[in-house]
Amino acid sequence: MSGTTLDDYTDRYAERMRGMSVSEIRALFAVASRPEVVSLAGGMPYVSALPLDEIAELTAKAIREKGAVALQYGSGQGEPRLRELICEVMALEGVDSSADDIVVTVGSQQGLDLISRIFLDPGDVVLAEAPSYVGALGTFAAAQADVVHVAMDADGLQPEALRATLERLRAEGRRVKFLYTVPNFHNPAGVTLSEPRRDAVIALAEEHDLLVIEDNPYGLLGFEDAPGRALRARSHDRVIYLGSFSKTFAAGLRTGWVLAPHAVREKLVLVNEAQLLSPSLFTQTVVTEYLEHHPWRDQVKVFRELYRERRDATLDALTTMMPAGVTWTHPRGGFYVWMTLPEGMDSKAMIPRALTHKVAYVPGVGFYSDGSGQRELRLSYCYPEPARIREGIRRLAAVLSEEAELRAVFGAGPSTVDVRRRGLDMPGPELT
Amino acid sequence: MSGTTLDDYTDRYAERMRGMSVSEIRALFAVASRPEVVSLAGGMPYVSALPLDEIAELTAKAIREKGAVALQYGSGQGEPRLRELICEVMALEGVDSSADDIVVTVGSQQGLDLISRIFLDPGDVVLAEAPSYVGALGTFAAAQADVVHVAMDADGLQPEALRATLERLRAEGRRVKFLYTVPNFHNPAGVTLSEPRRDAVIALAEEHDLLVIEDNPYGLLGFEDAPGRALRARSHDRVIYLGSFSKTFAAGLRTGWVLAPHAVREKLVLVNEAQLLSPSLFTQTVVTEYLEHHPWRDQVKVFRELYRERRDATLDALTTMMPAGVTWTHPRGGFYVWMTLPEGMDSKAMIPRALTHKVAYVPGVGFYSDGSGQRELRLSYCYPEPARIREGIRRLAAVLSEEAELRAVFGAGPSTVDVRRRGLDMPGPELT
Repeated sequence: MSGTTLDDYTDRYAERMRGMSVSEIRALFAVASRPEVVSLAGGMPYVSALPLDEIAELTAKAIREKGAVALQYGSGQGEPRLRELICEVMALEGVDSSADDIVVTVGSQQGLDLISRIFLDPGDVVLAEAPSYVGALGTFAAAQADVVHVAMDADGLQPEALRATLERLRAEGRRVKFLYTVPNFHNPAGVTLSEPRRDAVIALAEEHDLLVIEDNPYGLLGFEDAPGRALRARSHDRVIYLGSFSKTFAAGLRTGWVLAPHAVREKLVLVNEAQLLSPSLFTQTVVTEYLEHHPWRDQVKVFRELYRERRDATLDALTTMMPAGVTWTHPRGGFYVWMTLPEGMDSKAMIPRALTHKVAYVPGVGFYSDGSGQRELRLSYCYPEPARIREGIRRLAAVLSEEAELRAVFGAGPSTVDVRRRGLDMPGPELT
Repeated sequence: MSGTTLDDYTDRYAERMRGMSVSEIRALFAVASRPEVVSLAGGMPYVSALPLDEIAELTAKAIREKGAVALQYGSGQGEPRLRELICEVMALEGVDSSADDIVVTVGSQQGLDLISRIFLDPGDVVLAEAPSYVGALGTFAAAQADVVHVAMDADGLQPEALRATLERLRAEGRRVKFLYTVPNFHNPAGVTLSEPRRDAVIALAEEHDLLVIEDNPYGLLGFEDAPGRALRARSHDRVIYLGSFSKTFAAGLRTGWVLAPHAVREKLVLVNEAQLLSPSLFTQTVVTEYLEHHPWRDQVKVFRELYRERRDATLDALTTMMPAGVTWTHPRGGFYVWMTLPEGMDSKAMIPRALTHKVAYVPGVGFYSDGSGQRELRLSYCYPEPARIREGIRRLAAVLSEEAELRAVFGAGPSTVDVRRRGLDMPGPELT
């Protein structure tokens, strides 16, 4: 009984663990972090643009003056003053909220997890854009939910596709627990839900008694327009809103929030406490001090300009260098461009060649729960500087040309990597 | 369809939410935080004893010099250097470990939650001491597991009771997923598992193919002896170890860890990522810098002396003031004394009277999953200073005398608070 095999615990694991396995692309991506590789894979914000000296100072002051509180346990709902400041942040997108309806979370990923725990039983249906955020798909998979994708285009989620999906599922007798959507500068698609479509989605939610989870980490990072009006600004009862300081301040503080109708908020606090007692009061204090004493709106502007320059470099390079038949989205904010390759190409099978050429991206299949996305891939322009982005895209173009050439000579041939999605296939936090 | 009732979402919640409701003692305990109340309820470490200026300085330095990394996303497993330092911490209790087998968590509460997700299906059996840590019971309840309590006494968990329980459950055909135990300075019981019993528990684990979850937040806070040898030091394969910096450094940093056999560690990382991508790299950096550059062992000694003084004040006051028939445990470390009232008394029903007398404690029923513990209660001596502790115990003695008097005159009478446990009944992080 004391002998050790590779995994002695197999017969002990919970049912939900069956679908969870280490992504096979992880091993490949260990290579992507080497300095010689231009990584267009990771969605890491460019935190080097932060005023580190000032953050150091305000943090030190907070520890000296408020350490006996900040280093203590906090509440399961989060600090009252921070929740008030969060209301001010959301007001920029037209959201009228009360601090009492907010729960602070360990990044908005934990918000997603809390929502999944509260609403999802195994087999429940969740609607999500096609493609959708890989971290959300991972959480829904861990909750053993079935994700049904809804088509999107350059203007975001298609309301007519949403209606058709809702009607089909209703006819099949399947209950939709909620729609998960990233309306602004979508991860991974890079598109934004248009104004008329926002109204249409809310109207459909009313009509079909649909709960909407609005995930909005990038909303303040628009390059062209003022921030759009959130879905939550259009409906108090139908929308649960997820926000995050990961992209507007610092991802390492792991501070996000959920704004929810009162009854749901109560459940969120209970589950939050069962999960981790309270989010860090220390990081909440740092965020609070930063919002109170630093011109954070100016810093968001700095980020916006920086990411706009990188977006421009990306789109310019793509236009100049990509071979015919390759298409991509034109983000007006956020971190990502979504690319579609010519018929017959396979972005996941192509990874070894890309890494040989010292460029990395995330293949499309991870952003679907149904195995599609083989011709698609995500490029992130948030982290590398513009010259590196151009070099990365030059390398990617070379990869695509070689791939096309080979296919012309030998035909499609077998994939070098198995593209069938097997359960949860998260590429890890560095790639989300 | 757009009308709002008290909870419009009732028919949408997941099955697991049925057992979760707000504890009715929470409202009462809002009173406990008033300054005029001596709270012997909360398990909050006395972080005011920390060298705040030095922590401020080392944190500021880390932000200035390493901010571009520390403010970024981290890995789902936790920082390599911190994991190495954690190995050194555990070595103090005889644990031989590899940094590769450690996963950093948002406090050890999140470690418990990760373990619950990995192992627990609804209806699974978990063994736990009687009484047991309320936060663990909350997490197991959220996982819809059945907790079966195993008797303990002044020397901790009783191996013969553990054997009998294992045999009974086996005969009933019920699978025990794991034993959850706090061997050192138990929360809430204040007792410590003796050396011979540690060996006996491990022998039983081998014999019955039992997995043991060793939760050890207080291990370094012993007042009399050197730290005992951990269960994990006696078995690599049967024990998953949970550790925390909440009591040896600062709870507000929410930094704990799990040490697990390799196969389990892999699952922990996957679930950690699905739950929150990565624990805060910022708080991990603060802990790392503190362990590297501050004489943290001396600070643990400061805490030990401080808590010993409070333990002494508590036991002295109890001996002097408590009426006949009241008994209590004699902790040799940690934060808690467990008290048993005379036959017929009810610690939960007594709370309104206690709050009238401006003293607070946690009633025993919250520490059992089966409704027992009515005559029991937990006193925490970690936070108030000795003079306040004595005053609190004086007030508690008055409460008990009044209660005894009334009972002598009027008989038991109905409880003023319903003592039946209804599902998850967590009193909130301030009381854990």
